[in-house]
Amino acid sequence: MPLERIAILGTGLIGCSVGMALRQNGFAATIIGWDRDPTQAAIALSREAIDVTAEAPLTAATECDLILLSGPVFSILDWLEQLAPILQPHQLVTDVGSVKRVLCEHAAERYNHPNMPGFLPGHPMAGKEVGGAANADGELFRGAVWLFTSGAGEADMSQEAQAHAMEWRTWVQRFGSHILELDAVRHDELCAWVSHLPQFVSTALSALLEDKFPDDADLRAIGGRALREMTRLGASPYSMWRDIAHTNTEAVAATLLALEQRLTHLREHLKTPELRDEFDLANRFRLRNPHKPQGS
Amino acid sequence: MPLERIAILGTGLIGCSVGMALRQNGFAATIIGWDRDPTQAAIALSREAIDVTAEAPLTAATECDLILLSGPVFSILDWLEQLAPILQPHQLVTDVGSVKRVLCEHAAERYNHPNMPGFLPGHPMAGKEVGGAANADGELFRGAVWLFTSGAGEADMSQEAQAHAMEWRTWVQRFGSHILELDAVRHDELCAWVSHLPQFVSTALSALLEDKFPDDADLRAIGGRALREMTRLGASPYSMWRDIAHTNTEAVAATLLALEQRLTHLREHLKTPELRDEFDLANRFRLRNPHKPQGS
Repeated sequence: MPLERIAILGTGLIGCSVGMALRQNGFAATIIGWDRDPTQAAIALSREAIDVTAEAPLTAATECDLILLSGPVFSILDWLEQLAPILQPHQLVTDVGSVKRVLCEHAAERYNHPNMPGFLPGHPMAGKEVGGAANADGELFRGAVWLFTSGAGEADMSQEAQAHAMEWRTWVQRFGSHILELDAVRHDELCAWVSHLPQFVSTALSALLEDKFPDDADLRAIGGRALREMTRLGASPYSMWRDIAHTNTEAVAATLLALEQRLTHLREHLKTPELRDEFDLANRFRLRNPHKPQGS
Repeated sequence: MPLERIAILGTGLIGCSVGMALRQNGFAATIIGWDRDPTQAAIALSREAIDVTAEAPLTAATECDLILLSGPVFSILDWLEQLAPILQPHQLVTDVGSVKRVLCEHAAERYNHPNMPGFLPGHPMAGKEVGGAANADGELFRGAVWLFTSGAGEADMSQEAQAHAMEWRTWVQRFGSHILELDAVRHDELCAWVSHLPQFVSTALSALLEDKFPDDADLRAIGGRALREMTRLGASPYSMWRDIAHTNTEAVAATLLALEQRLTHLREHLKTPELRDEFDLANRFRLRNPHKPQGS
């Protein structure tokens, strides 16, 4: 039985983009949307990412085959808790949360048994530094990696939920994403390096510059692409990153400490040949990770 | 007397781009080029950035009205020293070097007196992480700031050299650049923040990742735009940045230390409300420095 009703709980940037991507890739059945900010749901509706806005999200969820949870990690955690007792085994919950270990641990006793609903933990590596349904884009996921950390849990779902999980992966591929399966702990560690560390460095650098040069027109005039790129994520919202800082604390702290030590090393060797070693290593990293065009 | 002959010593990315920008904006007189790597000079010639390659750069320089020095800081320092005794007061030297204090100090006793040649220290805030004449672009300077740190020196040049400096500013504006005049010490401090710090952070992060994950296909697969932007400058050449590290050491070290301390602070407050303060400050910085499109 193909998916006939999908609920999107959280129709901001990612949730609305998923709805648009479903439509652009031929999903013909019903999409129900809800957001705690009714404006976001209204924008998602006007952009045809959803067919209808739900009055009562829990009731809407009980009527759908697949429920997509899209929002900060703690809100996904709340939904997982509220939905577990009211969903049926044939229903599948999936999410787009930035960390996975805490969600998988929370779901372990509530999902993925033949008499419980299914939970397929997902994480598209796509986003923007500005949130909201108005910035959504059905092409947002093209060329991106969409991570799943289902682990052994998927085999224990009901047959119907397993079929929904298979179909969801097919839709994700139609969005243009490449699927990668990871263990949840490894997911959180790798994401600390490639996503969380860049965010916190960008926040720290932006905050430092705002502190030190609050009104320096010259600084603002001469800052070029290098500064723009390094501070772009400074615009990211605290509300989302607080949850990541709280739920992936150790992995993030380890990356920050490692970078602090590396910067100290570089600072102490600005005039020694060891600076060349750092550039050689960095050049090698870039050679193996050539700069692809934006968005790919 | 308008400029009739220009010498470009160093026809890599920036020197070749300047030649192309001159041509695209209607400069009709002669451009002589030289590079210590004859291949770079040949590429600049084939791209019509220069009319002829010089056999002997010092001789070529003596025959030109304006000599543009384009290369790492120490090479510019060498040229300033070699050219001072053989140029005439009517001739103007200008450069595109990344630091200015050490060049201005070096030039102080050799240039910018009525019986000495002129030196107009310049610095276009434009570049790429990949060098070479093959990557040159006559549009590279459009929308960028072109800094000058002439200070009081310009008033002491010969009348002819002053006229050349005036005309050179006009060409720079025709390239599409915005001119900003700065004191040399302030130039080096501001550039440490907006250019050198981003470079060294990108180098340190790239080197750290290469060290820690030399062969991790997953890390490479899931890295998105955030990682690409934060490590793009990891590709930059040591040869250029060594000179900056050696000639702007104190200013660069101060920015690195400040960022190290800021990262430590953030790491120690991942789970406290002070994280919100950092995001608030960073958000404010970005609001005042909205993300302009690339290249502008």
